[in-house]
Amino acid sequence: MMNDYTICAPATHGIGAISVIRISGAESFPILEKIFHPATSGKIISRQNPNTIHYGTIRDGEKIVDEVLISLFKAPHSYTGEDSIEISCHGSAYIQQKIMELLVANGAQPARPGEFTQRAFLNGKMDLSQAEAVADLIAAESEGAHQVALKQLRGGFSDKLKLLRDQLLHFISMIELELDFSEEEVEFADRKDLVRLVKEIASLINELISSFQLGNVLKNGVPVAIIGRPNVGKSTLLNAILDEERAIVSEIEGTTRDAIEDTMNLEGINFRFIDTAGIRETADTIENLGIRKTYQKIDQASIVLLLTEASDELEIIKRSLEAIRKQLDNGKKNLVVVLNKSDRITEKQIRELVKGISLQENEQIISISAEQKENISGLKSMLLDIVNIGSIKHQDVLISNIRHFNALKSAAESLTRVSEGLSSTLPSDLLAQDIREAIHYLGEITGEVTTDEILGNIFKNFCIGK
Amino acid sequence: MMNDYTICAPATHGIGAISVIRISGAESFPILEKIFHPATSGKIISRQNPNTIHYGTIRDGEKIVDEVLISLFKAPHSYTGEDSIEISCHGSAYIQQKIMELLVANGAQPARPGEFTQRAFLNGKMDLSQAEAVADLIAAESEGAHQVALKQLRGGFSDKLKLLRDQLLHFISMIELELDFSEEEVEFADRKDLVRLVKEIASLINELISSFQLGNVLKNGVPVAIIGRPNVGKSTLLNAILDEERAIVSEIEGTTRDAIEDTMNLEGINFRFIDTAGIRETADTIENLGIRKTYQKIDQASIVLLLTEASDELEIIKRSLEAIRKQLDNGKKNLVVVLNKSDRITEKQIRELVKGISLQENEQIISISAEQKENISGLKSMLLDIVNIGSIKHQDVLISNIRHFNALKSAAESLTRVSEGLSSTLPSDLLAQDIREAIHYLGEITGEVTTDEILGNIFKNFCIGK
Repeated sequence: MMNDYTICAPATHGIGAISVIRISGAESFPILEKIFHPATSGKIISRQNPNTIHYGTIRDGEKIVDEVLISLFKAPHSYTGEDSIEISCHGSAYIQQKIMELLVANGAQPARPGEFTQRAFLNGKMDLSQAEAVADLIAAESEGAHQVALKQLRGGFSDKLKLLRDQLLHFISMIELELDFSEEEVEFADRKDLVRLVKEIASLINELISSFQLGNVLKNGVPVAIIGRPNVGKSTLLNAILDEERAIVSEIEGTTRDAIEDTMNLEGINFRFIDTAGIRETADTIENLGIRKTYQKIDQASIVLLLTEASDELEIIKRSLEAIRKQLDNGKKNLVVVLNKSDRITEKQIRELVKGISLQENEQIISISAEQKENISGLKSMLLDIVNIGSIKHQDVLISNIRHFNALKSAAESLTRVSEGLSSTLPSDLLAQDIREAIHYLGEITGEVTTDEILGNIFKNFCIGK
Repeated sequence: MMNDYTICAPATHGIGAISVIRISGAESFPILEKIFHPATSGKIISRQNPNTIHYGTIRDGEKIVDEVLISLFKAPHSYTGEDSIEISCHGSAYIQQKIMELLVANGAQPARPGEFTQRAFLNGKMDLSQAEAVADLIAAESEGAHQVALKQLRGGFSDKLKLLRDQLLHFISMIELELDFSEEEVEFADRKDLVRLVKEIASLINELISSFQLGNVLKNGVPVAIIGRPNVGKSTLLNAILDEERAIVSEIEGTTRDAIEDTMNLEGINFRFIDTAGIRETADTIENLGIRKTYQKIDQASIVLLLTEASDELEIIKRSLEAIRKQLDNGKKNLVVVLNKSDRITEKQIRELVKGISLQENEQIISISAEQKENISGLKSMLLDIVNIGSIKHQDVLISNIRHFNALKSAAESLTRVSEGLSSTLPSDLLAQDIREAIHYLGEITGEVTTDEILGNIFKNFCIGK
C-alpha cells in the first residue's frame, strides 16, 4: 500500500492573504530541507518535533522566494498517514507556482486530484465512505448537506457496517469449513445465529437505503418548480418566499446555480427553485405545457408548485391540475396546488374551492396571497413537511451517496436470498455464494473491497490538494 | 498602540482543499477555547507551547462544525505581534462562514481589509514600507514584481533611511538647542558634519528616486502598443512574440487583464500588450489615428511599436513615423519602428531603408519577419534593452511605490534647501525648518510619521485576512 514517491499540491485555491502548499510522502522532509532555510540558523527540520511550526525562507539557490511558515507532521500522525509538511506562504499565484516548481525540481510529484485523501484511505486513516465524505464536506453549501457529510466523515454508518460485515465473514469461514468437510455433514456455523445476524444486517441496510432519499435531499437540496400561466404571480411568489432568506444565501460563496433561479435555505435544507422562464415565455395556458423544454424543467423538480388564482373558476383549476398530472410521472413527484390571491375571495369560497378539488396521493393544496404575504410561512412549512424534515432530526444514520445506495441495494438482495436459502435449507455452497456477495457489496462501501476503477472514479472528482 | 479587541477573518479565499481562518488579539485564546474541543481531552489550549499545532473539533454548542487543526502563536512572536491563532478547516464556504459566525458570536470582530498587517505595523513588527510590500507581494504576477516586493518586505531601503533619518533627528535637536541659547551664539551642531550627512542622505534619496521608473516597470509591467495599418501583421507579430511564453503566463491564476490583450514575461518582466483593436477597426492608414480612443491606447503605452512593411516605399514609412510622432508626447515614450516582412526584400534594401530614416532620441528601428519568425528574439532583446534590464541586476535598492516616490521627492527638495542654507549660512531657525521637513517626509515612508488618512489609504487596498 505504501507509495514510493512524494506528492505536493496547493491546498488553497485562488488568491488570498496566504496560500498553503502540502507535501506528503517519505521524502517530504529531505525535499523540504533542500529549499527551506530556517530563520534560526542551524535548526535541522527533520529533527524537530511533529506538530510544530517553523519560520524561515524558501530559497531557489541563493534567491529568496518567500518568507514562510512550515507545519510539520510525522507518520503515522498526519492526514495521509505519511510524513507531511504544509508550507504557508504569501497568497500570490506567482509564489505558489514558484514553490511548486521548486518542490518538483527537488523530487516531489504534483499530486493528482484527491491523491492526499486517497493515500489517507490506502494508509488506513479512513475508510472509503469517509474519504468520500471529505469531498462532500468541502462541497456542502447548506447545513443539512454539511451535517450529512460530517457524520459520514466521523465514521457514521461505516463502523457499524464493518462490524456486521466482520460477523458475516466469520460465518462464511465456518460455512466454507463445512464445505471442506462436506461428506461428514458437520455444521460449524450455527444456522440460528446466522438467521439472527442476517436479520440484523438486513434491518440496518434497509434503514440506510430508506434514508437515501432524505440524505440526497440534504446533500443536493430540493429542486422545486413553480409553474402556472403568465401573470398568475410566479415572480411575486418567489420573491415572497425568498424575501428574508436571500441575504443568507448570497453570503455563501461558490454556490453553483446552473438552471437554478434562486435558493432558499429552510432549517438547513436548500430548496432550489428551478428557472421556469421557458414555461413563462412559451405557454399561454397551463394546457400548452407539452413542449420538450418544459418537460425537462419539471423532470428536474421533486416538488412542483402549480400556481393558480383563487378567483379562477373551479373548472379551470381542475383542468390545469389534470394537465399537469399528465406531465408528471405521478406518485414520485410532489404536487402542491397553490391558490394565489386568496385575499380576493372569501374564506368560505376558498373552503368550497378546496372541497371541490379531489387530491391524489402526494398532492396537497394551500391558499396564499403572494402579494399580501399571507400564509407564505404555511407554504414553507408544507415544503418542509414534504421533505419530512421531522425525521431528519431523529435520524442519526443517513446515506447520501448514490454509490452507497446501489451497493446497499445489491447487498440487500443478496441477503434476501440468504434468508430465503436459510428457511428453505438451501445447500451450503449456494448459501455461501449469496453470503459472499453480500460481504462483497458491504465491503465496497467502506473500501475493504475495492478496484482501481472504483478508486479512480471516486478520487477524480476531488479537488487538487485534497 | 494596543488594540482592545480581537479580530478574525478568512486568510484564504475561494474554495480549496482547506481554508484558513485567522484570529488575532488579546482574547484570541479565550475566544477559541469557547468553540474548540481538543481531540486529547483535558488539553488546555492556552497552556500549550507557541508554534504548535493541535487537532480537534470546532463546535457550536454540542453540534460539531468541523474537524480542524489549530496553529498557536503567542505575542510578540506572531505576524501581528499579538496572540494569534490560525484555524485550518475543510475548504467549504459553509464551514468558513459558520466558524466566522461562531468567532464573532464569542467576541471577535470581523477584520477590516489589511487589519492584520496594520496591527503588525502598529505593534512594531514591520515599518510602513514593509507593510505595503506585503500587499505588493501578494499581487505580484512576475518575478520582477515579486523580487521588488520581497526586497522591500525584508527591510530593503527602509533600514538605511531610518538610520539616516535618526542622524538628521540628532542634528535637529542640536540646532534646536542652539535656538534656545540663541542669544549666546553657541553652535552645538557641527555644520561640517551636517553638510556631510545631508550629502549622504541626498545621494541615497536620489538613487531611490531614479530607481522608481525601473521599480514601477518591475511592479506593474511594461505596457506596449503595437500600431500599424490593417494587414501589416500586428496579430502575426503578437503571436510570434508570445509563442513560447503563452503557456507560462496562462498558468498563473488571477492575472487581471483589463484592456491588456496579452502578457509576455521576459527575464522576470511582464510586457503587457495593450489591446489596440480599436485602432485596427477604425483606422485605414496610420495617418487616420487621430481619434480619441486611439490616443488613450497609446497614452497607456510606455513603448510603442510602429509596424510597417519592409517593402513599403521609404516615403510611406517616413510619413507614418511623422504621424505617430505627433501623437506621442515625445521624449517620454519609446518608439520602435518595426520593418515587418523583411524576407520579401534583400538585406541591402533593408540597410538602405534604415539609412533613409533618421531617428530621434528614444527611437529605434529593427527589421523582422513575423511570419517567418525572423529576428523576433532581436526584437525581444530590444524591448529588454529599452527597460534597461541590465541595471536591475546590479540595483539592490529599488522603489516601486508612488507614495514613496512623492515623499522622497519632497524630502529631496527640503534637503536641497538645507544644502543651500548651509552654504549661504541661513539663520538656524530657517535651517531647522527645512531639516524638520526632510525628517517628516522620510518618516512618512517608513511610518514614523503617519496619519490616519495615510494608514487608511494604504490598508483599504489590502485583502481581507491580511
